[in-house]
Amino acid sequence: MEKIRFGIVGIGMMGRMHATSLQRNPHAEVVAVCARTESKVKAFQEEFGVPYGYTNVDELVNNPEVDAIVVATGADAHKAPCLAACKAKKHIFCEKPLAKTLEDCEEIEKAVAENGSKCFTVGFMRRFDPSYAEAKEKIRAGAIGKPILFKGVSLDPSSVLEAHLEGVKKGIYVPWFIEMGSHDTDLARWFLEGDPVDSFATGDAYVCTGLADYNDYDNGFSLTRFDNNTTAYIQVGRTATCSHVESEIVGTKGTLRVNSVPRKNYLSQFTENGFVEECQESFLARWGEAFQAEIDDFVDCVRTGRKPETTAHDGTMSLKFCLQLHQAYLDGKKK
Amino acid sequence: MEKIRFGIVGIGMMGRMHATSLQRNPHAEVVAVCARTESKVKAFQEEFGVPYGYTNVDELVNNPEVDAIVVATGADAHKAPCLAACKAKKHIFCEKPLAKTLEDCEEIEKAVAENGSKCFTVGFMRRFDPSYAEAKEKIRAGAIGKPILFKGVSLDPSSVLEAHLEGVKKGIYVPWFIEMGSHDTDLARWFLEGDPVDSFATGDAYVCTGLADYNDYDNGFSLTRFDNNTTAYIQVGRTATCSHVESEIVGTKGTLRVNSVPRKNYLSQFTENGFVEECQESFLARWGEAFQAEIDDFVDCVRTGRKPETTAHDGTMSLKFCLQLHQAYLDGKKK
Amino acid sequence: MEKIRFGIVGIGMMGRMHATSLQRNPHAEVVAVCARTESKVKAFQEEFGVPYGYTNVDELVNNPEVDAIVVATGADAHKAPCLAACKAKKHIFCEKPLAKTLEDCEEIEKAVAENGSKCFTVGFMRRFDPSYAEAKEKIRAGAIGKPILFKGVSLDPSSVLEAHLEGVKKGIYVPWFIEMGSHDTDLARWFLEGDPVDSFATGDAYVCTGLADYNDYDNGFSLTRFDNNTTAYIQVGRTATCSHVESEIVGTKGTLRVNSVPRKNYLSQFTENGFVEECQESFLARWGEAFQAEIDDFVDCVRTGRKPETTAHDGTMSLKFCLQLHQAYLDGKKK
Amino acid sequence: MEKIRFGIVGIGMMGRMHATSLQRNPHAEVVAVCARTESKVKAFQEEFGVPYGYTNVDELVNNPEVDAIVVATGADAHKAPCLAACKAKKHIFCEKPLAKTLEDCEEIEKAVAENGSKCFTVGFMRRFDPSYAEAKEKIRAGAIGKPILFKGVSLDPSSVLEAHLEGVKKGIYVPWFIEMGSHDTDLARWFLEGDPVDSFATGDAYVCTGLADYNDYDNGFSLTRFDNNTTAYIQVGRTATCSHVESEIVGTKGTLRVNSVPRKNYLSQFTENGFVEECQESFLARWGEAFQAEIDDFVDCVRTGRKPETTAHDGTMSLKFCLQLHQAYLDGKKK
Repeated sequence: MEKIRFGIVGIGMMGRMHATSLQRNPHAEVVAVCARTESKVKAFQEEFGVPYGYTNVDELVNNPEVDAIVVATGADAHKAPCLAACKAKKHIFCEKPLAKTLEDCEEIEKAVAENGSKCFTVGFMRRFDPSYAEAKEKIRAGAIGKPILFKGVSLDPSSVLEAHLEGVKKGIYVPWFIEMGSHDTDLARWFLEGDPVDSFATGDAYVCTGLADYNDYDNGFSLTRFDNNTTAYIQVGRTATCSHVESEIVGTKGTLRVNSVPRKNYLSQFTENGFVEECQESFLARWGEAFQAEIDDFVDCVRTGRKPETTAHDGTMSLKFCLQLHQAYLDGKKK
Repeated sequence: MEKIRFGIVGIGMMGRMHATSLQRNPHAEVVAVCARTESKVKAFQEEFGVPYGYTNVDELVNNPEVDAIVVATGADAHKAPCLAACKAKKHIFCEKPLAKTLEDCEEIEKAVAENGSKCFTVGFMRRFDPSYAEAKEKIRAGAIGKPILFKGVSLDPSSVLEAHLEGVKKGIYVPWFIEMGSHDTDLARWFLEGDPVDSFATGDAYVCTGLADYNDYDNGFSLTRFDNNTTAYIQVGRTATCSHVESEIVGTKGTLRVNSVPRKNYLSQFTENGFVEECQESFLARWGEAFQAEIDDFVDCVRTGRKPETTAHDGTMSLKFCLQLHQAYLDGKKK
Repeated sequence: MEKIRFGIVGIGMMGRMHATSLQRNPHAEVVAVCARTESKVKAFQEEFGVPYGYTNVDELVNNPEVDAIVVATGADAHKAPCLAACKAKKHIFCEKPLAKTLEDCEEIEKAVAENGSKCFTVGFMRRFDPSYAEAKEKIRAGAIGKPILFKGVSLDPSSVLEAHLEGVKKGIYVPWFIEMGSHDTDLARWFLEGDPVDSFATGDAYVCTGLADYNDYDNGFSLTRFDNNTTAYIQVGRTATCSHVESEIVGTKGTLRVNSVPRKNYLSQFTENGFVEECQESFLARWGEAFQAEIDDFVDCVRTGRKPETTAHDGTMSLKFCLQLHQAYLDGKKK
Repeated sequence: MEKIRFGIVGIGMMGRMHATSLQRNPHAEVVAVCARTESKVKAFQEEFGVPYGYTNVDELVNNPEVDAIVVATGADAHKAPCLAACKAKKHIFCEKPLAKTLEDCEEIEKAVAENGSKCFTVGFMRRFDPSYAEAKEKIRAGAIGKPILFKGVSLDPSSVLEAHLEGVKKGIYVPWFIEMGSHDTDLARWFLEGDPVDSFATGDAYVCTGLADYNDYDNGFSLTRFDNNTTAYIQVGRTATCSHVESEIVGTKGTLRVNSVPRKNYLSQFTENGFVEECQESFLARWGEAFQAEIDDFVDCVRTGRKPETTAHDGTMSLKFCLQLHQAYLDGKKK
């Protein structure tokens, strides 16, 4: 059996994570990698046993031994490898958010459309988490009637706040409704099967007040009316006591919740403080299974010709929704 | 020891409930009752052993053997007994919402101010529920830092929807952001220690579509910016699978939740469907302890001269907030 | 309507608690009280508004204005008031355990049988807790098939250990399989509908080592074969981090659990330590509703002539089972 | 970097599972496989890409390209490959239970001792489950004081009962205290750091009555005194509503629980039946992470020369404890 041969573009945390997931998939292998710094490319090749190393993405996508690429660079560097890979007729798995601007998103969408026979998807891995996948399945089966409200809460622990501020100062990080919010905006569209109309948003830089100078915040709260008469409440934050992503889908006949208590594992304790369940410390611990499942699904799509459910358009629409939430936040601040 | 002698105005479900609570308080007794229908007054007197029965509220409040009254009539009939009792220098416990219009609220507030030496409070019993009281205490002690977000979800089971529609048609019931919302608007102000500025609201009559003809809805979702840079998310509904009132207070250093899983009691089951915890079926089951505690606190205030924490002004402000949410809902519908 | 007139024998914590419960029952009143110390009797009369006070129990039971008595003395002082009240043809509510010896139990049983037309019950209040009552109801309805295993865990917080040792030294307290165990032995018989055959028990005075000198222990673990081929696991302890009574009934088709997490109330917290639910601090907090319900049921029995479900024989059999567990523990220690 | 080259002995469910785990470990590869049926060996080689296939285990262990073997045959066929591999100086990972008789266990222990420089371990994967591993770590750090009680409950869903009876009739399956109990006996020894003295056991073939003809049962309940004054309660069953392995370690200062509610994933539901959390359906779903972790640990031991924590002696002692529980059950039946 032939394995799908992957090239990894970007060797940060996400690139490494996807390389690991691909190694665990029996139908895939990583044959090429590209990053800016040659020494880091070499180290990556060594560690993962990857034959081809590049510092130029065009060379990677044009290597005839590469069937598919994983784009795991920063969001503003997604467009170039995507366009090049489309031109070279390769399959593409692109990390979220699809891009940093709607213009870039649309350019990618267009290129993808022209590369129609190949697979393209955006890394909204939450859709592949067993709990979210089962929620979607139950909804499709009518378990909660018609969904009328999606509530998405995505919180990071406060431990990373100061490092984040440094990143914001350097222009590396985008505001939280755009960075973290991209997941919830995608989930909202996925579960509600509609698109946002108007939004209202509040919040502030309550703890890391320095963020305010950059139009950023450590907590954002929003409510959005959808075009199909449904609603999304999206809350993002970076001042929680743990890593906590909780979602709820309210239907006319029942309600589903995912990860209401973000238990770290199956252990619970009776202590002097009461009944204690330790919580998820990082997003990698929470989503490991989902990251593997999304790559496995993508490999399966490439092998079978099935089209991935998440499209480039979903990437565009998610970003559009994120920007709308961010703008609603800024509009509120002006009042 | 002298007991505080109470008169009950209104003998519906709430009047009866307060009479029962007063009977369980060793420092109180019910000596008078007033309602429109003489036969019902007689039956009430018989059942609860109440010496004085009236169909005219002025007679009740002017009975010198009455120290305090409980106003448990419909919301539009609160003003008359409150004004009369203020004039007669009696202590007053008034059910929520304080009134149906802001004008009535302000008239009551004024009368209460002139009756300054006497106790007056509004029946926001949730403040007396042990879980909410402990939440407030923990917040005062700094357990979650500064509160920045209040989330209040108040849901009734769908079983009562049709009966509600009938009530709406007859003009008995007010829309849900005003009826049920009065509790959450009060809690939001109590926990956030601020007042609402602007609101955004969505929702619809999704299941009981007939409600739409009366500007009413079976689900309402709202987000409100407060004057102290905090936020309230308030969700009300009447299509849930159980009676479910859940609240969350998010602070800069931690988060508190009340009744996230509305367990009926301490029993849980392993069944073919999974791990099952049956849920609260009615608000009386959930709030029995709180109803007793609020009456006990009021009796204690009357006995000791201590002023109740919840004031007439809180009643006014809660209604104002409710009306703002309802208006935001209507404004959204016009778009 | 005539109220049932009660006399309270014993004015310790349990006597006061039952007096309070009786005051809350609209069909009962406390008219007499008896205790050893005259000044304490007077104080109790004053506090609860009780007309008759005695230091001699015979005088109380022979007061023709007393319809029923509550026996709330120490376990070794249950027999005298029970026998006297049987002779005087009064209804009797007796605290658990029925007595300290099987001989006393049997003497009481005999007297009760001769006083057949009157109500008699033993205060196994757990049967009246809404969760246990619902568990029993579900089992009767076949929800878990045939019960095959009862697991009863009854734990007190370690905070009371030293005081307990003092009580043991003075001969006031009985070992834990007998004191606390009396509830679980009753529940086991109630749920399994059988009687114990042979038992195996372990444990020790692990923390409060001084208890070992008195054949007592701070933790006891036991397994008992029942005559109907079912099994009871009973665990008692006094070194827990909270007051924790948890029960499980395993059936051939499902399992029921009561109070698996002994939540203090509906409040939960996200803290730096994780997700925290504070626990029940004392048995009074946990069982308040049950204590009221058992007295309400007893009052109803007296009023209607219905016989209480829990009989004197249940009291005897519970003690017999307790003594068997304690003996199994002692036998194990000899090995 | 050289990979550790593994040979798999036995290609049933466990053999396949370990092959998959080894494929996911970057430091291991599967180079050989052995089973009785040549065609199945070939199919396995094809599926997993394994170069060497055998029907004779001696040939496998003597292949110089095999560094280590995984013994995943039935329990009565563990001895032969273990002895052969010891002689051939190979590392050995052996599935649990170590063997079916104490004699076989001791023979293996002896051979392992003589093969001292090589790694040997028994597949008690629960020790590697993150929750159990964290429990052990917390206990080592003193979080619950001295452990005094281990409670292990291991339940299979009733769906497999009839198939099990067929296996028992054919002599394939051992009674449940030995098969499933091997995990709990190992955990008890691991957490309590002692060994069993005397046991008492009850239970029966309540649902699948045909098991009784084979001295087998569908539910077994046991209590065991340990030589260090601690206690183990072990309960095994095959009539549960789901796959449910729950453990508790009670210490003098706190208590730890693992998997008290066997949630399938992070999804919960509000339905007409109440709050529902679906449960674990099979042991593979529950223990996937642990199976991977135990193989990863073994590979690491082989690479670094570190000795595995679980020894052949642990395998022997676990079986001894299992047999003691089974005998206690049989002794009880004779009474």
